[in-house]
Amino acid sequence: MPLATLTWIGDRPGRVRMIDQTRLPTELVQLEIETVDQMVDAIRRLAVRGAPAIGVAAAFGVLLGIQAHSKKEAADVLGRTQEIAATLAKARPTAVNLFWALDRMVARATAEFQAKRSGERIVAALFDEAQTMYREDQETCRKIGELGAALLQDGQTVLTHCNAGALATVDYGTALAPIYTAKSQGKRVAVFADETRPLLQGSRLTAWELTQAGVDVTLITDNMAGRVMFEGKIDSVFVGADRIARNGDVCNKIGTYSVAVLAREHGIPFYVCAPISTFDAKLEHGGLIPIEERSDSEITEGLGRRTAPANQKVYNPAFDVTPARLVSAIVTERGVVHRPNMAKIEALLALRPGKN
Amino acid sequence: MPLATLTWIGDRPGRVRMIDQTRLPTELVQLEIETVDQMVDAIRRLAVRGAPAIGVAAAFGVLLGIQAHSKKEAADVLGRTQEIAATLAKARPTAVNLFWALDRMVARATAEFQAKRSGERIVAALFDEAQTMYREDQETCRKIGELGAALLQDGQTVLTHCNAGALATVDYGTALAPIYTAKSQGKRVAVFADETRPLLQGSRLTAWELTQAGVDVTLITDNMAGRVMFEGKIDSVFVGADRIARNGDVCNKIGTYSVAVLAREHGIPFYVCAPISTFDAKLEHGGLIPIEERSDSEITEGLGRRTAPANQKVYNPAFDVTPARLVSAIVTERGVVHRPNMAKIEALLALRPGKN
Repeated sequence: MPLATLTWIGDRPGRVRMIDQTRLPTELVQLEIETVDQMVDAIRRLAVRGAPAIGVAAAFGVLLGIQAHSKKEAADVLGRTQEIAATLAKARPTAVNLFWALDRMVARATAEFQAKRSGERIVAALFDEAQTMYREDQETCRKIGELGAALLQDGQTVLTHCNAGALATVDYGTALAPIYTAKSQGKRVAVFADETRPLLQGSRLTAWELTQAGVDVTLITDNMAGRVMFEGKIDSVFVGADRIARNGDVCNKIGTYSVAVLAREHGIPFYVCAPISTFDAKLEHGGLIPIEERSDSEITEGLGRRTAPANQKVYNPAFDVTPARLVSAIVTERGVVHRPNMAKIEALLALRPGKN
Repeated sequence: MPLATLTWIGDRPGRVRMIDQTRLPTELVQLEIETVDQMVDAIRRLAVRGAPAIGVAAAFGVLLGIQAHSKKEAADVLGRTQEIAATLAKARPTAVNLFWALDRMVARATAEFQAKRSGERIVAALFDEAQTMYREDQETCRKIGELGAALLQDGQTVLTHCNAGALATVDYGTALAPIYTAKSQGKRVAVFADETRPLLQGSRLTAWELTQAGVDVTLITDNMAGRVMFEGKIDSVFVGADRIARNGDVCNKIGTYSVAVLAREHGIPFYVCAPISTFDAKLEHGGLIPIEERSDSEITEGLGRRTAPANQKVYNPAFDVTPARLVSAIVTERGVVHRPNMAKIEALLALRPGKN
């Protein structure tokens, strides 16, 4: 089991302990977060990142702000909850999971208030809601891990790109969950990790967390993925996803598409691991997913010193889209969709009609 | 025309002016090299790199050491030439072109000595030999440029990997020669340059020299090559080669193979530009080419600070092999070999029987 990305320590009052991901991989520093402002700061400066982890961090942030108020009137507790949520929402203005988590906390407080619960009961309900979110993320990771581990055999080697691991969730991660689960089942699974330029999530985070968990991991630059496949070193590819369209096209960290093409060329299965919340049923295909372009400096001076000419023209798309035809299977907490297409994904999502 | 990588300045006595490539891309510093020791230092610390450029630099190094000795006896001049060559040979112990160039200079001095020429005539012959080598490299670049430019149409965009440009030769380079020639013909050709981890020759050198030459160049990370092809931005790929086997398999900088697979996937022609000296007719196929593995630190701290965990296991092959079936054509100074195979390459090399 990898080190906990973030956990609630103590009961009530409690605090949040989290790994400061900005210090990795050279230092392992655990932060003790005791106030809303400290949580805003931690989210803002990327001490915690990864959509599921940010969601839970925000929910815990609400608890930090509300836990001393259980003796207050119900209306005060609700007002205070709304204030704290507004403060936390400013930490990363584009992080959808942050808003989703805060909305869920405010909705719970509102429902309790409308049901005429006391301030104390509302605070208790918020603790319950945050713990539920934590547990749901954990269960999702475990389920993806279980289903994905069935795709791995003893002695195999996986290639992964970016970090869709424990550090992005509160538990096993998504793309790395099958590796942790396989290991816990006694299978020996080795990993090649792409360093993942420009921001090096592969070398900074994936290599670190797999090593911590005792997994045999070898770091390569992104342009070596083809070579290691050519050499016969790779049995399967596991990656995460940022968004999945209704036809199975997968938007993920830049470079994922190249890895998918290379996997197909070498007859290597290419698996995408993602929670159901990653599917965007409104999008018919991946071409409709807007691709964020990020700052030139991530490429020209991403590593501490300038490595390109001054004023160099740069193209820096943060994501790419892998067409469904290159995806061997999508592993979700509801099941594995082999050779994904629109009909299969609609069937998967229809398991809970109305949610997507 | 790009800035000269290295040139002989003055007649006799003269000196060598070269771009200090270790200072690029942030500073353009021209070195004035006046002694053999200064040349050894420049080659050793990679102020000059690229096989053809190193060969000419070594020949010029011999001139620097011999130019004050034209009044000496013939035997003294020959002995001195051998001494200088031995000194220069130590600059980079694995650089084949360095030895080839020095052997050629010593052979010329020996031939002149055996023909009973005076010391003065031997020194003059060495100047002639070095200038011939310079001119030959220039002619090779120009010829590759001409033949390659015919593969480019006005308005097209090329993707390139690593640096097989002017900075690796004394003139237009190899992979970049067609771009310079096309530009001189009035064609507008734009370039996407892979940054080329781990050593970033793409961002440090290719982006710099193309910008200097007024070519529209956009820098990307290696893992974006697939995305820009997917977006329809690329019309053809031009790369250099470190060694080419008799069947047309191409050994080049790590990442070249991935680019070739991606080009094939997108129906984009993949061109290799290389002088005839790059062919190794002794090797039946690319699987026989030994792949140098380089230091872990190029990946874990290649950019000024550590970006991977301590003691991280790393795989760092410096080259890969692209099978001939993925190569649309090899452009040499003797002609273009379309869809290369063993018969075609044997025919190409047989144009000068005995050399290969």
